[in-house]
Amino acid sequence: MQILIINPNSDPEMTAAIQNSAESFAGGQFEVVTKPTPGAPKFIETYTDEVQAAPGMMQLVRVNEDEFDAIIVACHCDPNLDAIKEMTVKPVVGIGEASMKMATMLGHNFSVVTTAMHSIPGKLAQARRYHLQDLMVSVRAPEADASACEDEELFLQLAKAAVEEDLAEVIVLGCAGLTGMDKLIQEKLGVPVLDGVICALVIATGLVRCGLSTSKVLGYNPEY
Amino acid sequence: MQILIINPNSDPEMTAAIQNSAESFAGGQFEVVTKPTPGAPKFIETYTDEVQAAPGMMQLVRVNEDEFDAIIVACHCDPNLDAIKEMTVKPVVGIGEASMKMATMLGHNFSVVTTAMHSIPGKLAQARRYHLQDLMVSVRAPEADASACEDEELFLQLAKAAVEEDLAEVIVLGCAGLTGMDKLIQEKLGVPVLDGVICALVIATGLVRCGLSTSKVLGYNPEY
Amino acid sequence: MQILIINPNSDPEMTAAIQNSAESFAGGQFEVVTKPTPGAPKFIETYTDEVQAAPGMMQLVRVNEDEFDAIIVACHCDPNLDAIKEMTVKPVVGIGEASMKMATMLGHNFSVVTTAMHSIPGKLAQARRYHLQDLMVSVRAPEADASACEDEELFLQLAKAAVEEDLAEVIVLGCAGLTGMDKLIQEKLGVPVLDGVICALVIATGLVRCGLSTSKVLGYNPEY
Amino acid sequence: MQILIINPNSDPEMTAAIQNSAESFAGGQFEVVTKPTPGAPKFIETYTDEVQAAPGMMQLVRVNEDEFDAIIVACHCDPNLDAIKEMTVKPVVGIGEASMKMATMLGHNFSVVTTAMHSIPGKLAQARRYHLQDLMVSVRAPEADASACEDEELFLQLAKAAVEEDLAEVIVLGCAGLTGMDKLIQEKLGVPVLDGVICALVIATGLVRCGLSTSKVLGYNPEY
Amino acid sequence: MQILIINPNSDPEMTAAIQNSAESFAGGQFEVVTKPTPGAPKFIETYTDEVQAAPGMMQLVRVNEDEFDAIIVACHCDPNLDAIKEMTVKPVVGIGEASMKMATMLGHNFSVVTTAMHSIPGKLAQARRYHLQDLMVSVRAPEADASACEDEELFLQLAKAAVEEDLAEVIVLGCAGLTGMDKLIQEKLGVPVLDGVICALVIATGLVRCGLSTSKVLGYNPEY
Amino acid sequence: MQILIINPNSDPEMTAAIQNSAESFAGGQFEVVTKPTPGAPKFIETYTDEVQAAPGMMQLVRVNEDEFDAIIVACHCDPNLDAIKEMTVKPVVGIGEASMKMATMLGHNFSVVTTAMHSIPGKLAQARRYHLQDLMVSVRAPEADASACEDEELFLQLAKAAVEEDLAEVIVLGCAGLTGMDKLIQEKLGVPVLDGVICALVIATGLVRCGLSTSKVLGYNPEY
Repeated sequence: MQILIINPNSDPEMTAAIQNSAESFAGGQFEVVTKPTPGAPKFIETYTDEVQAAPGMMQLVRVNEDEFDAIIVACHCDPNLDAIKEMTVKPVVGIGEASMKMATMLGHNFSVVTTAMHSIPGKLAQARRYHLQDLMVSVRAPEADASACEDEELFLQLAKAAVEEDLAEVIVLGCAGLTGMDKLIQEKLGVPVLDGVICALVIATGLVRCGLSTSKVLGYNPEY
Repeated sequence: MQILIINPNSDPEMTAAIQNSAESFAGGQFEVVTKPTPGAPKFIETYTDEVQAAPGMMQLVRVNEDEFDAIIVACHCDPNLDAIKEMTVKPVVGIGEASMKMATMLGHNFSVVTTAMHSIPGKLAQARRYHLQDLMVSVRAPEADASACEDEELFLQLAKAAVEEDLAEVIVLGCAGLTGMDKLIQEKLGVPVLDGVICALVIATGLVRCGLSTSKVLGYNPEY
Repeated sequence: MQILIINPNSDPEMTAAIQNSAESFAGGQFEVVTKPTPGAPKFIETYTDEVQAAPGMMQLVRVNEDEFDAIIVACHCDPNLDAIKEMTVKPVVGIGEASMKMATMLGHNFSVVTTAMHSIPGKLAQARRYHLQDLMVSVRAPEADASACEDEELFLQLAKAAVEEDLAEVIVLGCAGLTGMDKLIQEKLGVPVLDGVICALVIATGLVRCGLSTSKVLGYNPEY
Repeated sequence: MQILIINPNSDPEMTAAIQNSAESFAGGQFEVVTKPTPGAPKFIETYTDEVQAAPGMMQLVRVNEDEFDAIIVACHCDPNLDAIKEMTVKPVVGIGEASMKMATMLGHNFSVVTTAMHSIPGKLAQARRYHLQDLMVSVRAPEADASACEDEELFLQLAKAAVEEDLAEVIVLGCAGLTGMDKLIQEKLGVPVLDGVICALVIATGLVRCGLSTSKVLGYNPEY
Repeated sequence: MQILIINPNSDPEMTAAIQNSAESFAGGQFEVVTKPTPGAPKFIETYTDEVQAAPGMMQLVRVNEDEFDAIIVACHCDPNLDAIKEMTVKPVVGIGEASMKMATMLGHNFSVVTTAMHSIPGKLAQARRYHLQDLMVSVRAPEADASACEDEELFLQLAKAAVEEDLAEVIVLGCAGLTGMDKLIQEKLGVPVLDGVICALVIATGLVRCGLSTSKVLGYNPEY
Repeated sequence: MQILIINPNSDPEMTAAIQNSAESFAGGQFEVVTKPTPGAPKFIETYTDEVQAAPGMMQLVRVNEDEFDAIIVACHCDPNLDAIKEMTVKPVVGIGEASMKMATMLGHNFSVVTTAMHSIPGKLAQARRYHLQDLMVSVRAPEADASACEDEELFLQLAKAAVEEDLAEVIVLGCAGLTGMDKLIQEKLGVPVLDGVICALVIATGLVRCGLSTSKVLGYNPEY
């Protein structure tokens, strides 16, 4: 089985980090290839970033879909997910959708830890799009924009505040750039911590094995 | 006052129809210019159509924003609306958003009449995005895809069914291509019928006169 | 075009303030007349105040409807709005409804700044009535009842707290008595601030120009 | 214990029917007096009817509250209920509120059978006001307005359709004028049928015995 | 009339406290018998406690239903309520359901005061099950688990915080073990305080007098 | 990896059918053992059935948890799921929860096809418990109770009606007894069809590989 992971931004470092997490999870049981998006911004932070990533993402799908069994969109805001689901017969999974929906099976609620305050309104809108708004008790982000996703201590403190002050039972890492940080926070806090890249691999490989993909019977155009 | 109307598709006929409705409503009190979107599909029907219209729409905004006081996105599914709102300091209004929100001030509920069954799931998702899902009692579309938006009798019958069977009190025309059909249906059925192009002009000119535009304090990136 | 503004209370000072804001916005392009409600309380603060204002409000409509093109109810709690909409063929707009619905087009959420803590439960119920409860992030009011609506500094601080602590992107002035305070707060905070009187004028004049009014096909009795 | 039932309309026949049901339920264990509302319309059907009943209802409360232990508002649309709750220290119960909330304890959902199609939008809004909108599966009313509430067969058929077609488990009689029809429909259909007058007596006498009444700590003005 | 109160736990002290409250409320007008649940845990705190109480609760119903007119489940989390409603023709009332639904008739919202932080997620889920989630403004519990339900001062302070910080208008005692504490807190805070045992008696005796019980027409199996 | 599937009923045939589907899906990559519940009813149809299955289910967990990596509850109504999640440190997945949540990743909505009309209210309540009520467009069941789950044609027709009349995009098989019917219906209708047993295996094996299990930080008692 071969899984294509689209990193919607063009950053080689984040692409490598995602590939690293994915390979480690795959453990040789399936193949996984992460590709950065040509022409996309270096980081997907805004609505315009999302829109600007679209042509490159669609091109990646068009060029690669035949060789892969499933496609993952590896930005936690799930940019252009409906369009990607529509344009291919292969199953498509967003890391935001997969992680937030799996989180609801592990506790009464969840909190998302993310990289910037200005992502909060968009994250709330996204949760609502998935009908998860009443299950997401909070979105926690650093007051000052995090220059480095690598600051594990910072995100650990945010997760701790979510558990202690917002009564969160489960933590979702709200940015692909935080991939790999799940185990550390989980150990320190004693609550499940979900890495979207891993969650999406669970769902995507599962869909492939089940023979399931996006319904094209009505709302998603079957011609693509 | 000058209003730019972006027609997110590239069809010159629909562009002309929108311009015609808009000018007629403006009545010389403000100027209005409708532009088709370069590089966009001929008709916006699918999620991929929406995404494909984005680069051209953003280019239209970038090139024209200085000369205009407000911008209208004239496709009822409000494609790329958040990105357009984000990238300019001028007020931006979608015809879907304006018409559905104005409809709620005229009755207990509303129904949307649109051109194709396969638009229904997307229209429901859009209504939910605006928190209108419990106010929109139905979406009515022809069983066979309407080849011609000009078939007024067809849309009149759909609106009639919405009023009689779904107990709709207000009708929203769910496609820019239906512009101009509002008065006829309103007269025949005796219920308010809203044309999104006109509604968006009401809101856009109002925002200009009020000195109001999109908030850039948190979720919409102020750098654009 | 002539717009009647009903001030549901009997206070001549607030009536003058509303008329002043309205005239200034009209700028000679349409006529506007504000009338206080005979027999109404001096200030509309409670459910019984709302009910006591009803006979006078209905009388104002009955006497004046023929001469005016639209009617505005200028108390932010929109007292007796359904009855006023029902009893006339002219379009009727409440300043609460207009301002809160327009606010949703300018940001991901809004906060209402109002004059008294005891108005909070009623404001929440009103937002819910308009299906806006999940878009209204907070209602901010002075701890001690504001003796004077003129205290701009007080309301500026409340709006500031809404933006900084509640992450509000848009501010709605939640009392007709605050009319005219929008520009100052908007300038100071850099977020859109909506004055209900002005918003209602935008909607009311728009409805007149569109030839739209309350649907009388089912829930609002057409005999009135 | 003495219970005052306010019939918000001025019809002596409906007043007598309500008194009859109430006395029969009281069975001598408490006293109950039903009074018609001076100056109110003959039947409460519209928003303006509701508003017109207000002055008389408030007068009835003011004159009688000292002699009674609780007050019931006996119109299923619960007109002016918040104002009546606010203006007295005695517990106040609406027959719409009591019957719909008690219905939720007897089944997974309920349906309201009422007298006229044009009441449907208002009934939906009322259910939403009580957060019951997802528990009320339907509102059933005669296609032609029922000239006579006495037509038991008509309302039996409506209730039957609610059970069979809408999968209603509980029926609520949606008009005080239907009082006394509950037992017949319950026997014929084998589902619980709730008469609002009786439900309100259960709640009102219960509140008196519990020493409970409307909270005046914030939203309901304690000065009344 | 005879009412059976099932205490879902096996604690004789709590059984006696419930019986005491109930008898005092009954005042000789009806008979009431409280029984502890054989084989149940000493205190119902967890999901497994709830499940473990089920066999004993069902046995109590089977053995006693013929002699009683209605059955009350006297644990505020309403354990196994659907099964108990299903298995008997007699009306069944949970103290959680009764108290939270009656609370909504006395104010704009309510807060639940309960005995342990770890009950909060379950209480939120329970409120949602009854469609009350937006009416319950908070659940307040002691930071450290309360060893003794008798600590009135502790629960008074929690209720006070709910009123002052969460703007609660009504307090619901969220544990049968708090029975009898309502009057004290109500007097001290000046807001309605509801004791679930008493509320359930109001509803249960009312249902008996109305001849109402659980609908068995569809979702609750009529064979039991 | 070893997965325990608990069949909450005691039927050996259904146990074999579940084991068969599970083994076939596992394809030798992990081990799976399905066990019937001692002392449980032959079929889980009612609330009392669910409760009666609890002691045996808990016993199965207690006896087997050490040998297995994850536990699946294989009845689509997810009986006693919270208690089972609470009492073990191993991940626990319900087939109802897994299938309905995975369904939301494959289309705009889903419909559940189940075996009996009287399950409909319970299925709606279950969907609401998972916050899926607005995504589940319908529950379809045979008018007459299906004596045999093997009647594929019957369930195919129900699924077809869901797609054509309810505009369902995805079908969820709402009973473990329908396991194995997914491929046939999927082929015939051209929409994704989900078998809960398979979906639960996807999630359960995924959770094991991720090192994730139920949060015990607050609402689920960590002592079990």
